[in-house]
Amino acid sequence: MSALETLGQFYAQARLADVPEPALDIMRLCFLDWMIVGRAAKADQVAQAMLQFAHHQRTEGPSALFFGGSADPRRASLVNGTISHALDYDDTHFAHIGHVSTVVIPAALAQGQASGASLEQVLRAALLGAEAATRFGVWLGRGHYQIGYHQTATAGAIGAAVAAGAAANLADIRGSLSNVAGFAAGLKAQFGTAMKPVNAGMAAANGVEAVQMAMAGLSGASNSLEAFAQIHHGERDDTAWDALGQRWLFEGVTHKFYPCCHGTHAMIEALRQTLPGGPRPEKITVRTHPRWMSVCNKPEVADALEAKFSYRALAALLVQNAGATVDEAALQALFPLSAETRALMGRVEVLAQESLGEEEAHVTLKAEGQHRVATHDLRAPLSFEARLEKLMAKGEGVLAPGQTTQYWEILARADLSALSAAIRA
Amino acid sequence: MSALETLGQFYAQARLADVPEPALDIMRLCFLDWMIVGRAAKADQVAQAMLQFAHHQRTEGPSALFFGGSADPRRASLVNGTISHALDYDDTHFAHIGHVSTVVIPAALAQGQASGASLEQVLRAALLGAEAATRFGVWLGRGHYQIGYHQTATAGAIGAAVAAGAAANLADIRGSLSNVAGFAAGLKAQFGTAMKPVNAGMAAANGVEAVQMAMAGLSGASNSLEAFAQIHHGERDDTAWDALGQRWLFEGVTHKFYPCCHGTHAMIEALRQTLPGGPRPEKITVRTHPRWMSVCNKPEVADALEAKFSYRALAALLVQNAGATVDEAALQALFPLSAETRALMGRVEVLAQESLGEEEAHVTLKAEGQHRVATHDLRAPLSFEARLEKLMAKGEGVLAPGQTTQYWEILARADLSALSAAIRA
Repeated sequence: MSALETLGQFYAQARLADVPEPALDIMRLCFLDWMIVGRAAKADQVAQAMLQFAHHQRTEGPSALFFGGSADPRRASLVNGTISHALDYDDTHFAHIGHVSTVVIPAALAQGQASGASLEQVLRAALLGAEAATRFGVWLGRGHYQIGYHQTATAGAIGAAVAAGAAANLADIRGSLSNVAGFAAGLKAQFGTAMKPVNAGMAAANGVEAVQMAMAGLSGASNSLEAFAQIHHGERDDTAWDALGQRWLFEGVTHKFYPCCHGTHAMIEALRQTLPGGPRPEKITVRTHPRWMSVCNKPEVADALEAKFSYRALAALLVQNAGATVDEAALQALFPLSAETRALMGRVEVLAQESLGEEEAHVTLKAEGQHRVATHDLRAPLSFEARLEKLMAKGEGVLAPGQTTQYWEILARADLSALSAAIRA
Repeated sequence: MSALETLGQFYAQARLADVPEPALDIMRLCFLDWMIVGRAAKADQVAQAMLQFAHHQRTEGPSALFFGGSADPRRASLVNGTISHALDYDDTHFAHIGHVSTVVIPAALAQGQASGASLEQVLRAALLGAEAATRFGVWLGRGHYQIGYHQTATAGAIGAAVAAGAAANLADIRGSLSNVAGFAAGLKAQFGTAMKPVNAGMAAANGVEAVQMAMAGLSGASNSLEAFAQIHHGERDDTAWDALGQRWLFEGVTHKFYPCCHGTHAMIEALRQTLPGGPRPEKITVRTHPRWMSVCNKPEVADALEAKFSYRALAALLVQNAGATVDEAALQALFPLSAETRALMGRVEVLAQESLGEEEAHVTLKAEGQHRVATHDLRAPLSFEARLEKLMAKGEGVLAPGQTTQYWEILARADLSALSAAIRA
């Protein structure tokens, strides 16, 4: 069966069935996280430029824009998708090889606002889109990403079409999928530029536009997803569809709980388990996957931004606050570096270890002749409550006090007009 | 030098220099043709669906839409680009391997209307965009097309960015090009569906949006055109840039003068040279490039649409009207097929000949024991006057009497508001 038929069948069944509550709960957490990372980007340069772009030709419309105004669903998806990826602080799915919520949530939300959907329907739509994006990302495989496609955008556009279609309450998603296959694009060459977050926004916009064209009676070829994969170095691994609709692969999504490089997060978790209550370590040895050595192992740091890519600086910070947390305020307070911080950084040794996974870290703390060790794997299951607590702390670190709690209450009571107001505020 | 720098330099120089009049004259003819094929699509199903799509969320804006209304420049480019490719009756450049005007003209026009450009500036902008699209298409090469990319859309988006940038009077096009490299997309798998013309519209829209983002201060990687080509099976043939800015490769653009498959046009021209004044042929032998045998060699035809893909039916029609022309009315009048037409079709033999180019045909007419032969090559130069005359006849065949002349007068006096009114009418 073609990818179009497979996803079409999944959509038709999942749309009418009760989706499992645990999956929907995780989407609710993703939505909270999406609000946090979007709202936290207010002062970001790319976010500001995107708002200038949006307001240059202000189009009235039903869909809310971050930080004020509204637009048609396509433009709102583009703007909100870009803004929520601007800080690179949003969720990731390692199987999909990409960021999920930053693409599917803006598409579901903007189209839902245009189609008169409830927030509960928007959440369900985002969940269907997230599962489709994740599965399609697995189907494309690692080769597609490795050669240079930004899977967040390519597989993301497929998910965005599913999300927007569900938000518009389409009975059949196949026409929309046949359309979006021809629009999906995004280059890894854009990493490090404003176009990286724009890729996420364009994926959301492409999904929305594919749906709107389908609603006007326009559709493409039934083999277009296969054609896309074939010429874009996709692996077309049909095991990607195993237990589709029964098992929700999306549930493996991971959140960033600290405003720094994802490669440092496993170390941070391991240190937060080990440091509290113990003596101050004389030496810290961090073992990590070799690929991170060129990414987040800056030996010297000049400011908070560089510290986000430095095992040494982050470990020193955690020693100083006894494993409390890493947040924006603590990172800023680290500079200018004190003599104490410098001395602590000098006591951190970072080693590459092939046997560790990319999501793992191992730390050894030496103090008073004793060794304490801890390993953390970011893939380890996390309870709903633990995730929520960490997201609340994340939000408190980057937003005004109480704002994160307010967003969570809005999501809990599924109040779309309050949510729209919170986005626009 | 990178493709971005090469095209950036061409743009910076050509924007301020006097572009050669012959090239600009050909763009004027292309604009006339674009008006003809766009306006002729009024009753087309895809064009109608596209208008429904556009008006579903009517956005006011400065840019005219075919058949009424206006929108922001991106949406206007999308709608007008799709409509002008809907009949597949628009111009082609065999070096670019794609349709040129249907992408660059809507982008230049819609952005020009938003930026307060004159029609003369819009024409110049479209010319720069057409040259960039053509060169970039050559740079990507035939392999990119053969494997399954719709070059009209991919190379077209690059041209659309140049066209829109010039229409917006940008001093530097490099930021826009770095952006559009990440948006360019389009699958040949969509041929035969509504998404084929939509590919052209999306290419125009992507170019316009890339420019608008650059104007808001957003840009991508300086190597993004190379990255695009590398992973999209592009040949990156740097001879594509030879004499860029001195020689206008765009001038090799070819127009469709007959509403039928491009593969039949060389035969039609050869028959129109040979038939008038001679005796009615007892036998006609048509020799053509092998690739057309599966495209436009329908032996039997049931209606005018099928006749457009039939050497036999078109040859019979031309014998009956003594080589006058092929137009929509004559094609319709052919059905139901008369006994005479059937007999004439039976006297036509079609042979594949490897040694002929794709743009060539060879015909042999046998009558009264004599043989008359003719060869036609669509790449043969055509004077401005001859092109104009043929386009006028084309327009008269598909539009209301006198309308084509009116469009030409509007173009001659470079009257943008009259042109906008004619598009909207």
